[in-house]
Amino acid sequence: MEEFHKIYKERYLDEALKDYAESDYYPFHMPGHKRNISELADPYKIDITEIEGFDHLHQAEGILLEAQNRLCRLYGSRRAYYLVNGSTCGLLSAVGAVVKPKENILIARNCHKAVYNAVKIFGLKADYVYPQFLSCGIQGVVTPEDVEKALRKQGNTRAVVITSPTYDGIVSDIKKIAEITHKFNAYLIVDEAHGAHFSLSPHVPRSAIGQGADLVIQSLHKTLPSFTQTAALHVASDRADAARVEEMLGIFETSSPSYVLMAGIDRCVRLLETSADELFDKLNRRLKLFYDNCKELKRLHVFTKEDLELDAGMDADPAKILISTLCAGISGEQLYRRLLEKYHLQLELYSADYALAMAGIMDTEEGFQRLFCALKEIDAELSFWEMSGTWNGEGRFLQEVYAEREKVWEISEASYAAVEETEESCCAGKISAEYIYLYPPGIPMLVPGERITEDFLAVLRKCRELHLNVQGIRDKILTVAHI
Amino acid sequence: MEEFHKIYKERYLDEALKDYAESDYYPFHMPGHKRNISELADPYKIDITEIEGFDHLHQAEGILLEAQNRLCRLYGSRRAYYLVNGSTCGLLSAVGAVVKPKENILIARNCHKAVYNAVKIFGLKADYVYPQFLSCGIQGVVTPEDVEKALRKQGNTRAVVITSPTYDGIVSDIKKIAEITHKFNAYLIVDEAHGAHFSLSPHVPRSAIGQGADLVIQSLHKTLPSFTQTAALHVASDRADAARVEEMLGIFETSSPSYVLMAGIDRCVRLLETSADELFDKLNRRLKLFYDNCKELKRLHVFTKEDLELDAGMDADPAKILISTLCAGISGEQLYRRLLEKYHLQLELYSADYALAMAGIMDTEEGFQRLFCALKEIDAELSFWEMSGTWNGEGRFLQEVYAEREKVWEISEASYAAVEETEESCCAGKISAEYIYLYPPGIPMLVPGERITEDFLAVLRKCRELHLNVQGIRDKILTVAHI
Repeated sequence: MEEFHKIYKERYLDEALKDYAESDYYPFHMPGHKRNISELADPYKIDITEIEGFDHLHQAEGILLEAQNRLCRLYGSRRAYYLVNGSTCGLLSAVGAVVKPKENILIARNCHKAVYNAVKIFGLKADYVYPQFLSCGIQGVVTPEDVEKALRKQGNTRAVVITSPTYDGIVSDIKKIAEITHKFNAYLIVDEAHGAHFSLSPHVPRSAIGQGADLVIQSLHKTLPSFTQTAALHVASDRADAARVEEMLGIFETSSPSYVLMAGIDRCVRLLETSADELFDKLNRRLKLFYDNCKELKRLHVFTKEDLELDAGMDADPAKILISTLCAGISGEQLYRRLLEKYHLQLELYSADYALAMAGIMDTEEGFQRLFCALKEIDAELSFWEMSGTWNGEGRFLQEVYAEREKVWEISEASYAAVEETEESCCAGKISAEYIYLYPPGIPMLVPGERITEDFLAVLRKCRELHLNVQGIRDKILTVAHI
Repeated sequence: MEEFHKIYKERYLDEALKDYAESDYYPFHMPGHKRNISELADPYKIDITEIEGFDHLHQAEGILLEAQNRLCRLYGSRRAYYLVNGSTCGLLSAVGAVVKPKENILIARNCHKAVYNAVKIFGLKADYVYPQFLSCGIQGVVTPEDVEKALRKQGNTRAVVITSPTYDGIVSDIKKIAEITHKFNAYLIVDEAHGAHFSLSPHVPRSAIGQGADLVIQSLHKTLPSFTQTAALHVASDRADAARVEEMLGIFETSSPSYVLMAGIDRCVRLLETSADELFDKLNRRLKLFYDNCKELKRLHVFTKEDLELDAGMDADPAKILISTLCAGISGEQLYRRLLEKYHLQLELYSADYALAMAGIMDTEEGFQRLFCALKEIDAELSFWEMSGTWNGEGRFLQEVYAEREKVWEISEASYAAVEETEESCCAGKISAEYIYLYPPGIPMLVPGERITEDFLAVLRKCRELHLNVQGIRDKILTVAHI
């Protein structure tokens, strides 16, 4: 980090980005185009506004309607909307389209911050369904049984929001969850941000579209060759009202959408229309070879589908390469830094005891080879030095990070309460007035209205020791005053 | 329109945009880079995510903090934030940062739809201050006296939102309005979307920054060489709380901001740091010549500052070229179409009896010459044929469009009420449940909770006759049910 900060200090952003583009750093991270797609056009030359012939995104009737219809056909949804403010505006709009202020909502606790923000601005009463933990130490699925239990408990639930796949690629049983949700007369919104490539090939898991979800949000930029900040909102059932969705998009999405970003979406769609089979076949072959090769690693371990012990109806995305350091004597961060600094391989993220490499259809054969060779070399070093003791991860860290918290107030109540800044060491017992979360993935560890406990403060310290990027708080924590 | 629609029908967006870029159509519209700036870089090559060394927009500490600080220094604000979801997210965030739900707000009636959306989602009680009308037929300033009167009437106003300049470039007396607003203990938010170039040269009006406004939102893309969808939010006084602003930006702006858009902002800032004087001097000389030349027009008339009859403290942006057809016997649309179809000059908008050409520092000498020569030719034709009677505009059309409406319900009440779809012809007397507005400029003619009158329906029909782009309604109007 310091190395880079030094390089880019006092550089203009566009110049720093150009330098970086010319470096040999390889992207095992978003966006899914992997900087490996030939030039669209000089972006300034195609950056127009709503002039004659180029339609209006917020009331599309011409070229933008046709473009969105192509997206729609690709996924078999009822309606598809371009999002140029990322999945963020899709999640806010989806929730806003199906709830009225003060209604009840049930959300998976591992939802993105945007879902919690929707809860706040619409003043909703939120209950949580907690995802299971897999024995390998990552967050797993939300089970249909837990959804049913939570719906029964809450009563009058207007909408259920599930994140599937997770950031790590774990896919819940959307079909069953949809059946249950609809039985309780609620809408099912699926945050499929990390699954925009789903259903486009037999080699990848099935999308929530077509399995009963009412509204599905996909970050096109995360796993497909589309610009950062581009996403899609699908109306996937007859139950959801497209007019309400459009009303909400009119609120949360800019009235000056970028034609560069939109052109990038249409270009991505065209590529998929013509070449999806070929591209996913190639990715599948490369992934298979990579996973096979990784079997020879001794200390590091690349999780396979078998390690995840998934039940029927669940699935996992093989393009999320999870490299465990649990038996390697090093932390996830140490692996991540070694890959970055020695091998110039930039991974998506690290956690306590694993690192995540995101692969996709634009990755090159060379990229996979570089990653495997680097892992092999690191693995050999670790074996040679018999590293141990420097890291005593037990695979339970994330379970502590995302443990169940005591909700005292609703999010919107706590957000607008009188607050005070409290030293972290004096926070135990107080009620948080803000979100505390790790970024990535942007899932809250604590939300406004929840009690700060000694356990939580211990986890927070551990996150910092592990150099995880804790966001939401600066020096002090904002707490609800005089409680 | 049909011509273009035919050309671009069944074309992919990226291909259509490339074709258009290679045409000879000249942009007298947004974005302000006028497609006349040399290539940034292949956009895919510099489109990264928050990897090492490239900071996090929502908790900026490195290269993005430095970049935003450059923006801040350029305008002399206290803090400046990059917006990649346009001024839309800046307006929502600015309002959200200073109000709590259900509080009172006073907004200029000619505010952008985003301000009304903020009123809705925060459940605010909104009063309006109506802008004056200029005798030449366009919306003028909001006067300090009217603000004071409205503040006295409403009581407990938490925030005042003013649009200055207007879409047409008319600048209100922000200094006086700020003094009055602060006397009433309210925050002043200025939507300076069309004034991002203000204060950068003695040739342009002064920015609201430094004149007492607390929060100022600028659309960088509108008048400066920056990508569409890029904007800035400035904390311009000590009164506004930057932490609250950041909290709101965390809600309304994507968590995956585009580095291409952000690089474009920094590049624009660099250009202005090094060359603002030279660029604005050149623009000023070209505008002066253009306005001088236009004096010889006989039927068409290009408004000068003198035509606008502005009082002290008010101002007008000379880069907004307003071409009046009032005495020419044709409508604004007819002029607009003639310029587009015969001369391939794409203007920003037309209204009943004028058309608007947006100029800026990236315009070429050739562009101004083409516009003047076209106007001269059209003017000569009109004189030769002694056109008259085909258009009987009286310069009062916009005054009818934006006339004062009867507010029956608050926006948020009407938005969440039971609604029904009503045939336009049966709407008189009913209460609207939706916005009806012209785009551009995106200013509501009617907002949810206001009564639909016969007069209003007549105006709506007139808008359609004039081929103005009425948005918000399809075939029927959504009205509050059973009132």
